[in-house]
Formats: sequence, C-alpha cells, structure tokens
Amino acid sequence: MTRVELYDATLRDGMGSGGLSLTAEEKVRLVHRLDDLGIDLIEAGFPASNPKEAELFSLLEHEPLEHATIASFGMTRRRGVLASEDAGLRVLADCFAPVCTIVGKTWTLHVEKVVRATRQENLAMIAESVAFLVAQGKRVIFDAEHVFDGLLADHDYAIACLRAAADAGAQRLALCDTNGPSLPSQVAAAVADVASALPGVALGIHCHDDGGCAVANSMMAVEAGATQVQGTINGIGERTGNTNLITIIANLQLKLGHRVVSDEQLQRLTETAHFADELLNRQPDAAQPYVGKHAFAHKAGLHAAGIRADATTFEHIDPALVGNRRDLLVSELSGRGTVTDKAESAGLALDDEVTSRVLERMKALEHGGYQFEAADGSFELLLRKEAGQYEPLFRLESWRVIVEQRADGKVETEATIKIWVDGERYVRTAEGNGPVNALDAALRAAITQTHPHLSDIWLTNFKVRILDETKGSGATIRVLIESTDGEDEWGSIGVSTNLIGASWMALVDSLEYAEQPNRLRGRATA
Amino acid sequence: MTRVELYDATLRDGMGSGGLSLTAEEKVRLVHRLDDLGIDLIEAGFPASNPKEAELFSLLEHEPLEHATIASFGMTRRRGVLASEDAGLRVLADCFAPVCTIVGKTWTLHVEKVVRATRQENLAMIAESVAFLVAQGKRVIFDAEHVFDGLLADHDYAIACLRAAADAGAQRLALCDTNGPSLPSQVAAAVADVASALPGVALGIHCHDDGGCAVANSMMAVEAGATQVQGTINGIGERTGNTNLITIIANLQLKLGHRVVSDEQLQRLTETAHFADELLNRQPDAAQPYVGKHAFAHKAGLHAAGIRADATTFEHIDPALVGNRRDLLVSELSGRGTVTDKAESAGLALDDEVTSRVLERMKALEHGGYQFEAADGSFELLLRKEAGQYEPLFRLESWRVIVEQRADGKVETEATIKIWVDGERYVRTAEGNGPVNALDAALRAAITQTHPHLSDIWLTNFKVRILDETKGSGATIRVLIESTDGEDEWGSIGVSTNLIGASWMALVDSLEYAEQPNRLRGRATA
Repeated sequence: MTRVELYDATLRDGMGSGGLSLTAEEKVRLVHRLDDLGIDLIEAGFPASNPKEAELFSLLEHEPLEHATIASFGMTRRRGVLASEDAGLRVLADCFAPVCTIVGKTWTLHVEKVVRATRQENLAMIAESVAFLVAQGKRVIFDAEHVFDGLLADHDYAIACLRAAADAGAQRLALCDTNGPSLPSQVAAAVADVASALPGVALGIHCHDDGGCAVANSMMAVEAGATQVQGTINGIGERTGNTNLITIIANLQLKLGHRVVSDEQLQRLTETAHFADELLNRQPDAAQPYVGKHAFAHKAGLHAAGIRADATTFEHIDPALVGNRRDLLVSELSGRGTVTDKAESAGLALDDEVTSRVLERMKALEHGGYQFEAADGSFELLLRKEAGQYEPLFRLESWRVIVEQRADGKVETEATIKIWVDGERYVRTAEGNGPVNALDAALRAAITQTHPHLSDIWLTNFKVRILDETKGSGATIRVLIESTDGEDEWGSIGVSTNLIGASWMALVDSLEYAEQPNRLRGRATA
Repeated sequence: MTRVELYDATLRDGMGSGGLSLTAEEKVRLVHRLDDLGIDLIEAGFPASNPKEAELFSLLEHEPLEHATIASFGMTRRRGVLASEDAGLRVLADCFAPVCTIVGKTWTLHVEKVVRATRQENLAMIAESVAFLVAQGKRVIFDAEHVFDGLLADHDYAIACLRAAADAGAQRLALCDTNGPSLPSQVAAAVADVASALPGVALGIHCHDDGGCAVANSMMAVEAGATQVQGTINGIGERTGNTNLITIIANLQLKLGHRVVSDEQLQRLTETAHFADELLNRQPDAAQPYVGKHAFAHKAGLHAAGIRADATTFEHIDPALVGNRRDLLVSELSGRGTVTDKAESAGLALDDEVTSRVLERMKALEHGGYQFEAADGSFELLLRKEAGQYEPLFRLESWRVIVEQRADGKVETEATIKIWVDGERYVRTAEGNGPVNALDAALRAAITQTHPHLSDIWLTNFKVRILDETKGSGATIRVLIESTDGEDEWGSIGVSTNLIGASWMALVDSLEYAEQPNRLRGRATA
C-alpha cells in the first residue's frame, strides 16, 4: 500500500473561517504540534501577502522540525507575464520553503469568467509556473482548483490542465473540490478517471464540507488512488470548513489499515485537536468524531451494560488509541498515565494514593469548567498541592478593582490589594490599562518586595470563554492566561462566574507557578 | 426513481445527545415543524417508557398533521416469551401510531453477549415480533441493529435475520450502522449485497457519525438501493450524532435529483434547523452545511469578486433554495463591493462618497484591532453612522464598576451608570455575577424605562482576545459579544486597552443595533 501523505492547510485555508486568526507566534506553536502529530506537509501561507505572513516565514525558517516540511502557497502566474517575472512566483522561489503549492484553474467557467484568459493561455500559465518553480529547485504541488466541476464542464480540458502541470514537473496534482459540491461516489469516479488518464502521476485530494461529505470524499479518493490528503485540524475553514484531518488520520489508520502516523502520534490526536481549539479560542465540538468529549460517551442502561460485557459491542474503536476516553466509565488508566508523566517531568514522584487524589480533584474541577490541557502551570500547581509540595506565595486578605468611565470620556482603572507575606502585611494600589493589568500591577508591587525577580514575568495572552452560553453574561467564565519569563512559557486557569474573579485566579497561578522549583518546561523550549 | 422516504428520529435517538431534553409540548411543536418540512415518518419514542413519553403519544394522537405519520419505537420480544404476551410489544400494538419500528439483533456478537440467546431463538424473536405487530394491523419497520458489523462477522446469519423480518411481513428493513464504524465504500457494498440477497425488499439506512461519514454513508446507501433515510435534525444524537437529516434533504434533492420535499419546503430547511437548535437551547453550528451562518460566507477578495461576477463560480448551490443567504464577511481582504452589498441588505443606499468614507473608517478601525467579520451588528451601526442614519440610544455621562474580593473570600460586583435619554437623567446601580453582567444590568435598568422591549435581548456569548501579545495585560483587547432576541442574532465589538471599556462598547452596540429600524433580518425570517 503506498503511504498516504498528510497535508495540513490549517494555517492558510483554515484561517478562512469566520472570526479566526492567529499571530505568527501562535502559528509556530501550532506547527510544532502538527510536527509532533506526524503531519508530512504544513502549508504556511503566501510568504508575502502581508507583514504577518512574512514574519511567520522568517520565524519558520529557523524552527527545527522533526518530520514535517513547510510548504508555501501561491498561484500560477498572471496573464501575459513571464513566470520568471511574476511577482508572486518570485516570492515563492525566494522563500526558504522547499515545497511550493500553487493553485491553478481547470474549470472553463473560471478560466473565462474569473481569470478571463483563453484556454490556451491558462494551459501556458500552469505549465510555465510549474516549470519555473521546478527550475528553482522546488518540489511543486499543483492544486487543481474546482477540478471536479471542471471535469463535468469540459472533461478533456480539465485533463489537459492536469497533464500540463504534470508534464511541467509537478510532483503531485491535488484535486480540489473547491466549492464543495461533490458527493462521495462522484469523487470516487472522478479520481479513478484522472488516475487512468494520467497513469503514474501522484494525486492528492482537497475537499470542503459543503455537502457534509468532506471526510468521506477524501476517504473515497484515497480508495480510488489518491496518496495525499489535504485538510485542516478540526475541519476549520471557509464556509462549512475543510476536510477534518483529525478524523481522516483516525479513519485511514484504524479503518483502512494505512500507516500514516505512529501509534504514539495517533494517541496525540485528541490533545492536538483540543490544543488547536484552545489556541483559536473555539469551543471544542463535543460530538467531534474520535476526539470529542462525547465521542465515546454511553448512556446508562443497555449500552453501558454492553460496554462492561465487551467494549466492542458498543464502541467502534478503543478510545485510548486516539488519546480519548470513555465518558461514563472514567478510564483511570489513560488519566493516571498522563498524571504520572506530568509529575515526572515536574520532578515529582507521586505514589498511587496521591495520583488517585489528583484524578479525583481533576474530575471535580473539570466538571466545574476547568480544562487543564492549555493550563500546564495550574496543572503542575495542582500536582504539587496534592503531593504536599506547595508553598503559597502569599496570603490574600482582599482585593478591589474600580473601573470607571468619567464624564470627560476617560476610562480609569485602579486596583488595591492587601496581602500577607512572611507575617508582613502589604497594601498596594496601582492603576492600569484595565482591571487585570491593574490587579497584576498591584499584586506585583506587593510581591516583588520579597520576590524581586517576579517583575521579569509577563503575561502574553489571556482568553475568556463563557462555558454555559445559554446563561449569557451570568454564566460560568473560564480565563486562561499565558505567561513567560522570556524563556519558558506556561498557561494558568481560573474559573468563576465573575470575569475578574476568574482572571485573579489565573493571575495568581501564573505567578505561583513562576516560583516553583524545577517547573515543567513550556512549549517554547519543549 | 423510487421516492426516498424521510424518517426523523430526533425525538428518540436525537435525545441521546449529552444534556438534551424536550418537554412533551416542545416535542409536539417540533413534530409540526417536521411535518411542515415534509418529513414522512416521525419516530416519537416508546409509548410507555416513562410518563413523559406516554403524555407525548396522548398529545400526538389528536394532533392533525398534514403529511407525516407518527411511528412508535420498540424492540423485538424478550427471550422465552410469546410475542403476544411481551409487555413492550403490547404497548406498541395498543398505541395509536400506525407504524411500529422495532429494533432487533443481527450481529452474532450481540446475540451471544448482550441478548444471550441462541441464534435460532433470535431468529424466532424477530419473526414472531414482526408477525404479531403486522397481525395487529401495524406497518412494521425492522431496524436491523449493528447489521454492518453483523454482515462482516457472520454474513449468512445477518441475512437470515433480515429475511426472517421480511418474511414475517416487515414493510421495510432499516440497515443500522449502530456503533458507526462503517465507511462509505463499505456501506455501499453492504447495501448492494443485502439488496441482491433480498430482492424486492424495501431497505432503509440509519447511520451514526463516529467516522465523520454518516451523511455520506446514507447517500451511498441510497445510491445502492435504500429508499428510506433515517436521521435527526442537525445530526444530534448519542456520541458523535446521527445522520444529519437537514444535510441529507438538500443533498438528495439538489445533488442527486431526488424529489423528497417540495421547493417551498426546501426553503424552510434553514429555518427548521435553527428552530430545532433554539428549542434545544443549542448554539447553532455556523459551519453547518447548507443552513449554517457561514455556509455561504465569503472572505477573500478574490472569491468575493468572483461571486459578484457569477455566483456559480464560488457557490455550489443558490443559498435561497434552502432558505439561507449569502454572507460576505467584511475583512481587510475585501473591499467596496462587500460594503455596498452589506448596506443594501440593511436597506441603506450609500453613495460613492459615503462608501469611500466607510472603507476609510473600516481600514482605520481594523488597523486598530477591530474585526467586523463576527460583528455584523457593529458593522451595520458603522454604516448607519457614516450614512447619517444613526440615532444614539442615550447619552452617557459616566459609568463605574467595582469588583472586590473581601476578607471573607466573597467576590462582589457592582456597577453604576449615569445616562441621559430624551433630556432625562437616569442613574442606576446594579449588582452582577461579574463586571459585564453588572454593567449590562445597570444599563438596562436605565434604558428599559424608555425602551421596555430591550429587556428581551440577551447576550449569548462573548469572546476576549489580546491583540498585541507582547504587551501582556497592557495590550489592546478585543471583545466580541453575540446577542439575540430569540429570532435574530447579531455580533458586536469593542476594542480598548481596557477589558471593561471594550466590553462596554460591545454592550452598547449590541443594544443600539437591536433598536435599529429595518435591521438585517436573521435567518429565521430571511
């Protein structure tokens, strides 16, 4: 069986989704997770479409990856320009990325109405663009946009476009169902058709979920001969989204016997999916195949009894294979392993009793809205508390925040904090740009009297999520704060119905974690 | 082409989804919507599994439906009992519903481990149960549970089970992929296999989304000969959910040329999907095929230009066919055309000068951290302001929020607001669960004096994002608020270095938008 290549388009196509955006640094963090998961190719975007993209590529150039290759993304040359003089193609040629994915037209409707080129000119645009990049030493993937529509509209012309790319040296042709109109049987037939028209040419598949069939279409394409699947983490993307790479990985490996990632990488599937959602501030879909919170949940009664008799009676796969767990019967094994591993990295040896207590406590906290996946700092503090190796940084007496917009339109914020450190009472008031900033400033004004190096910690991000959406502004709120000392990075969490209360908890955890000895190394240096 | 029957299982199987429940009366409301949509069969549940179900059936008995038929749901008789003496079957026989769906085993693993019956006994259970209900004058649908696993485990036995049901008079055999393990090509092959083993027997398909292929599997089954699709509205259901009937209806009618509902009914698709979410208190999935808010949203400049040239270039169907609408996401990448289109939908005619001003203003605001993609409410207010068609709701004098954690550990929040409406000064103080909640409460306490219906607006979500991460808690903050009046939904935005200041802006926009005349109608009435 030819190995199926995994091509991630989260950083580019995935960002087409309404309201999503990531900074260049967040994208780099995601790239590392994708690399860890065993993704083969990571499409990072067009290297110069704006300063943010340019920054991303300059960061990526020096980022050491275990396995993945970075691909840049662009399009065929413009009409009436030499490929070697096309500004876009030159950017791709000059970019460090060894793989270039260029999108080109194969659907006569687009050639006529969008590009407004002759059919012959479009063929030349494809061939010359591919040839130029190949001559520059790049591996070229030709993304055949709208090719399924193209094959229906003018079969021979669409094939001619694909052949032009292949003949010019494209290493692979990715068949794109760009508008997402196709159904599985149509995709299967079209891929088989292209494979027989262009024997020996490596094919890929790129689908959108407009008919709710992106994953299925991609599976059918693989069965019909495609050896690369393009998709995004959690299926994010413009409109209804792209092929969900998370689902594809599990389907290919567990259902069709393809070996796309290692067993250990497969076990990171759930964690990777949740990491991406956290980074994007998206509510994870509890019903998401394989990795959703409810994916292996079982109602009481018949099903649960069946599960106890033999899990295969009511479960299509063992949830541990993808790092998920059964919901009703709390799987202590996967949880226990994680806790032990985390404790070890923190230099803590937990006995069985403490591990059980940690699991109990986690279960209760997660039930209340905590989520430790992106809050490694708070999680380590929890381990230390249960292991009896925790020293509070201070004892709180009280805090107060006042934010006011005055009659002159100016908004002012002031926080006052009263804490005890080593038997000494500290009362400090600070102004700030906002309530968390002011609280942070007041707390540090007090705490740096005894812990001066805590002034070197800064908050890099915080995220707020309403947990029970139907309760509107009266709901439980989860605040995640990310902090750094310039080397290490960590996350901390607070949960409360009060936004400031939750922020305060996360703020305190952030600073307390900074003070822990042998603390877990963050993502940046992992 | 044999007409494909639509079978809705939302009221029973759909309720297996975590945290969902409906009262009997809500279920009746949904039944009417399903009837209006053109659903053929509505599975209402087991008529006596609890008093709520019994109440539902007694209500349904007298409910006039245009088109749909109610089906009751049960299972084959217990081991070692006469069908006529099986309590469950007697309930089905006594119920008014003319159609009975009974589930039975076809997978040897379940026969042995769950039912613990001999294979022969299981065949008798199927045959006798079907025969009993047929003799009582019922149309019987036999739900062949786990039949795809059954065919793989012991093909001939699974076929024997199906034949037993057909021979006993079952009007239809529904092939159920109960645990959801199957992929489209497997379903296609199995359905074709059953169709050839049991020629002339009407088949149905019932899938779950564990592999992300429920819709595709159902489509493949129809292409292989199934003439009934079972599913739920929006795909709700246990674990990862059932086949999404909303997607299936559109796919069958618009992609495969089946006539499952009328054109007018198809136009109710979006409204029906949203109604069900509303009833179930679920956040509608913006990325849901056909009916999601983003299903026909376009972002990139290139795409948006193509759409204006010819919608078929970038849209797989006309959104109006399913009662949805095109949504051009306002973003840095798009330009003048998008603004004009948005203004038109809001009933505003902008001249060139105003359009240019709007673009200038947007550019400046987006540079400062605004993002209008998810803030359609604020964007329309911006249009109105620039077009000179904006009336502020009130004049602000000042507001103040105090949040404090007292020495006893309790966190308290209080907001005071001073505003002027129609020359009158209103000063109101309110407590809240958090600062936004308290501000919201104080503002409404004032504003509902003159605009009482604004008490019907509620906030459904808010999101907070730090824009310039390197500035930590001193950075610019973007707050997005989503609001609804139960029918329409809109987003509003605030950007400030102050979290509370940004929330305040978004809050004011949310309420001001609610007061605009001719505001963009939501999906429910589009």
